[in-house]
Amino acid sequence: MKTIDLTKIKSPADIRNMNIEELTELSAELRATLLKKLSAHGGHIGPNLGMVEAVVAMHYVFNTPEDKIVFDVSHQTYPHKMITGRMQAFTDPAHYDDVTGYTNPDESEYDLYSLGHTSSAVALAAGLATARDLKGDKENVIAVIGDGSLSGGIAFEGFDYGATLNSNFIVVVNDNQMSIAENHGGIYDNLKLLRETNGTAETNLFRAMGFDYRYVAYGNDLHSLIEAFKDVKDINHPVVVHINTMKGMGLPVAEADKETFHYSGPFDLKTGAPLNEGDPNDAPEDYGDLFAKGMMRRMKENGKVVTITAGTPGVLGFDKARRLEAGKQFIDAAIAEQSAVDIASGLAKGGIRPVVGFVSSFLQRAYDQFSQDIALNKQAATFVVFYGSMFGMNDETHLGFFDIALLSNIPGLLYLAPTCKEEFEAMMDWSVKQDKLPVVVRTPGSTAVSNPEIEILDDYSTPKYDVVRKGSEVALIGAGLMFGFMQQAADMLAKEGVNVTLINPRNLSTLDTEALDSLKDYKTVITAEDGTIDGGFGQKVASYLGTAPVKVINLGLPKEFLNHYNYAELQKRCGLTPEQIAQTAIESLK
Amino acid sequence: MKTIDLTKIKSPADIRNMNIEELTELSAELRATLLKKLSAHGGHIGPNLGMVEAVVAMHYVFNTPEDKIVFDVSHQTYPHKMITGRMQAFTDPAHYDDVTGYTNPDESEYDLYSLGHTSSAVALAAGLATARDLKGDKENVIAVIGDGSLSGGIAFEGFDYGATLNSNFIVVVNDNQMSIAENHGGIYDNLKLLRETNGTAETNLFRAMGFDYRYVAYGNDLHSLIEAFKDVKDINHPVVVHINTMKGMGLPVAEADKETFHYSGPFDLKTGAPLNEGDPNDAPEDYGDLFAKGMMRRMKENGKVVTITAGTPGVLGFDKARRLEAGKQFIDAAIAEQSAVDIASGLAKGGIRPVVGFVSSFLQRAYDQFSQDIALNKQAATFVVFYGSMFGMNDETHLGFFDIALLSNIPGLLYLAPTCKEEFEAMMDWSVKQDKLPVVVRTPGSTAVSNPEIEILDDYSTPKYDVVRKGSEVALIGAGLMFGFMQQAADMLAKEGVNVTLINPRNLSTLDTEALDSLKDYKTVITAEDGTIDGGFGQKVASYLGTAPVKVINLGLPKEFLNHYNYAELQKRCGLTPEQIAQTAIESLK
Repeated sequence: MKTIDLTKIKSPADIRNMNIEELTELSAELRATLLKKLSAHGGHIGPNLGMVEAVVAMHYVFNTPEDKIVFDVSHQTYPHKMITGRMQAFTDPAHYDDVTGYTNPDESEYDLYSLGHTSSAVALAAGLATARDLKGDKENVIAVIGDGSLSGGIAFEGFDYGATLNSNFIVVVNDNQMSIAENHGGIYDNLKLLRETNGTAETNLFRAMGFDYRYVAYGNDLHSLIEAFKDVKDINHPVVVHINTMKGMGLPVAEADKETFHYSGPFDLKTGAPLNEGDPNDAPEDYGDLFAKGMMRRMKENGKVVTITAGTPGVLGFDKARRLEAGKQFIDAAIAEQSAVDIASGLAKGGIRPVVGFVSSFLQRAYDQFSQDIALNKQAATFVVFYGSMFGMNDETHLGFFDIALLSNIPGLLYLAPTCKEEFEAMMDWSVKQDKLPVVVRTPGSTAVSNPEIEILDDYSTPKYDVVRKGSEVALIGAGLMFGFMQQAADMLAKEGVNVTLINPRNLSTLDTEALDSLKDYKTVITAEDGTIDGGFGQKVASYLGTAPVKVINLGLPKEFLNHYNYAELQKRCGLTPEQIAQTAIESLK
Repeated sequence: MKTIDLTKIKSPADIRNMNIEELTELSAELRATLLKKLSAHGGHIGPNLGMVEAVVAMHYVFNTPEDKIVFDVSHQTYPHKMITGRMQAFTDPAHYDDVTGYTNPDESEYDLYSLGHTSSAVALAAGLATARDLKGDKENVIAVIGDGSLSGGIAFEGFDYGATLNSNFIVVVNDNQMSIAENHGGIYDNLKLLRETNGTAETNLFRAMGFDYRYVAYGNDLHSLIEAFKDVKDINHPVVVHINTMKGMGLPVAEADKETFHYSGPFDLKTGAPLNEGDPNDAPEDYGDLFAKGMMRRMKENGKVVTITAGTPGVLGFDKARRLEAGKQFIDAAIAEQSAVDIASGLAKGGIRPVVGFVSSFLQRAYDQFSQDIALNKQAATFVVFYGSMFGMNDETHLGFFDIALLSNIPGLLYLAPTCKEEFEAMMDWSVKQDKLPVVVRTPGSTAVSNPEIEILDDYSTPKYDVVRKGSEVALIGAGLMFGFMQQAADMLAKEGVNVTLINPRNLSTLDTEALDSLKDYKTVITAEDGTIDGGFGQKVASYLGTAPVKVINLGLPKEFLNHYNYAELQKRCGLTPEQIAQTAIESLK
């Protein structure tokens, strides 16, 4: 068996002449190269390792890019990128950052979408297939979706529509028996039954949704995959190819601990131990861990308190041990944000105190449920926003600065922005105890900042700004994480002799009009928030003070899908460094 | 058989002693009473008529309100309201408006939620069942969901979670073989198969999702229903009771034309002809019809133009004849707003020009798809918003004034607000021809207003305000429908000698900073929009002009879930009559 020179593979055309031995060798080389890069660089480990053979087989059998593949959430597209002209970003450490972690049409014509939220691929591909049919074209359209992503409602909607196509439509279901953590939901019993019966069970979710069906028991076996894909190529109706794969294949620690190695930073290839992390006792506190500790305490104190995640328990600090300890008081609703919110609504209605943790970018998947089933129906559930910050995730698909505009404009939904860990804990304690209001609490960044002097309230239901420093000339209102920068700016301004007021607004959904009235005769009010200016907190202040003589300046993020930005550069671009804030204040006084 | 006196039925306890003959008579009386009210008053006709027996049987068998029933979208709850203490609102014309058209916890303890959006009942009820289990209680928890609502992804998410309950959970699937219009989707073939096999087919969507299953062939037969409900009462695991009902039962015109009589205004009981409508030739033009006419023209001119609805073709003016004529260029994605948006994204990616029409209140069900799959991925699809107005639907569940704040803050999504039908047509023509941008066009109210003098642009992609009247003292910026009120106010102010500028902003997502810069030295700028002030267009203007000497006053709707409000009263409360706007301007000059 000769060795494959990966650097010579420039496009799928270069693998279509290979025989099965060469394809096998290619897959081994791809996996070895992936392991080298991922252990040094980090990334989505498990999903990519498990899909090497399937990606090779798809590009071997289908005539990409004429045939179109939409990869759901695109956590499994590293081997795809390697084969489609971007090998150097995997073989050459100097070029590791040349590609994003997701499909990206700016990189390649083989990438149809920039995708990072799950469950949309089937509907998107069904739309592509519909376009093909309207134009009278004949290419294959393929969606690739993982078992974990099947739980999202948009996946079901996509299947339901896709089944009505009287034409070629292929959905590859990559069943690695895992979501990010373990799967939850009734459909997973059916997937198990299908695996156990080699795809022959009569009860079949995919057939029930209207699809033809084919099962591949060995989803890491090139022979089986190629045979199956050849069989469905140019098929004239919708079909599911259900492939049983091994998440983390080829990396024993990842095969053994699939949750830890779904996504990981750099790690030791042999032991799996994380690299460059130093002493964990020296690591800064993060809000996931703080949240989990607080919730474990609250759940112990009150058997009616429940914590809910939509498929991301790790983000909430709930590792396996804590999940086990929490027992029935911890619910993983699967990657199904809409039902996570509605389960919380039902729990609250039933007298339970639900607390749901969301990554900022994912809570937008449940807007209608926040609006209708929580806010309109006044259900006292608590929602905690993680990574809701310009200093959080910086992929264009996972930005954390849209949730203030999204949620704070829903009637009756109280949006709280603590500025430090003590305030976070106080707001959480209050929220879980009260039974009147739906509450959103936004963790201020990732790393916990302490401010033991923070003023704690007994009740956060009505807006009450915390006037930390009282002046008369310039008022700085800093929400959440921005409060710290504003505080530093206030110190600078005070040194310059500016009579400065510093405010922690606490509440981003309703204005403290009394506090704002007292600022009407100021020269300048500056607001800063860790979210887009458009639709956000500051614009409410500007509107309220619109007829007062005071100047109002709103600082925050631009309304843009930024990608892989540098945190410090963005902060500067937005004028959000303490120095810039102070300078803006001084210039406004001229 | 004795006649039942409906007025003596105060609660379900009053029907639990009845024998089957009495229950049959009761059902007949309820239906007759419903027919009388609905023909005089209008409402959801078909869904309620089809569910009389099932509602009677549920309240007969289950121990409501201890046993809990969540009615999906609550289009089938008139008989429920009649039995649960609100009979007078159906028997006495003077009290017809005492109840809302949806379940309403303010009306009755038998109503668990205020629901008007589809597909959430299963997840909500699953949450209630989870709460019950955590508390160690034992009541039955029942969700009632129609076949048309099954297409919404949140329904699937609810089933997927609900199946994991190791306890009592009953989902009644009311299969009347219709959505609002006809059903679309692969799952409906499975429902058909189940009906045709009397529930015995091995391919079974509900079993595949993890539910036990029971079929009732005669869903309007009290005997069968009572037997089935008794069988599943106190069951110890999740079960679906699939009942085959007749939408519109008892009203021959509704049985024959289920789509027309899903919801209807007052009508003649014998002929089905609408009442009080006058000569249809005298009826004002509405934007549904205008939209449909325009799209039929565009689709004929260009075979690559496609119109999409998410289950509400009637709202878009697409009656059966137009759907038939449009053929493959008309897609009903079913009640599945997320996939409607993603199908549009796939179509646009495939070179088609998709136009999706949404009721304002329902487009919020697809926020994540608007953000990720349309805006981030820059797909040139057009979205048309219907009833996006304070003068649209006035049920708290269907309010039309949240969509500006929702969509205009998404990066890269162009939000256009035409002020009249000529501008609407021009924006639509432009949007469908261009292939660069995703565009939202908001119909200005329901009734079309003509303004032949409107300035039409060749390109709406960059913000360019239309300065209709040029002054120097007060500027009135009126968006969409509000432009007309602003125009009247401008006339009044001019008569008072105020030097007034009148602006149609056209674009609500990006400011025309050049136009706004020219207003900095004005005394007052007043914005008015047909949406909430919070998060909306005006606050962007207030923010932009925050450091200028000009006063900025934002007019619009309050951030509240208003219910059954009076249009004129609300307009007054918001200061949005022309007289009030003029008065506000004059007072600002003092």
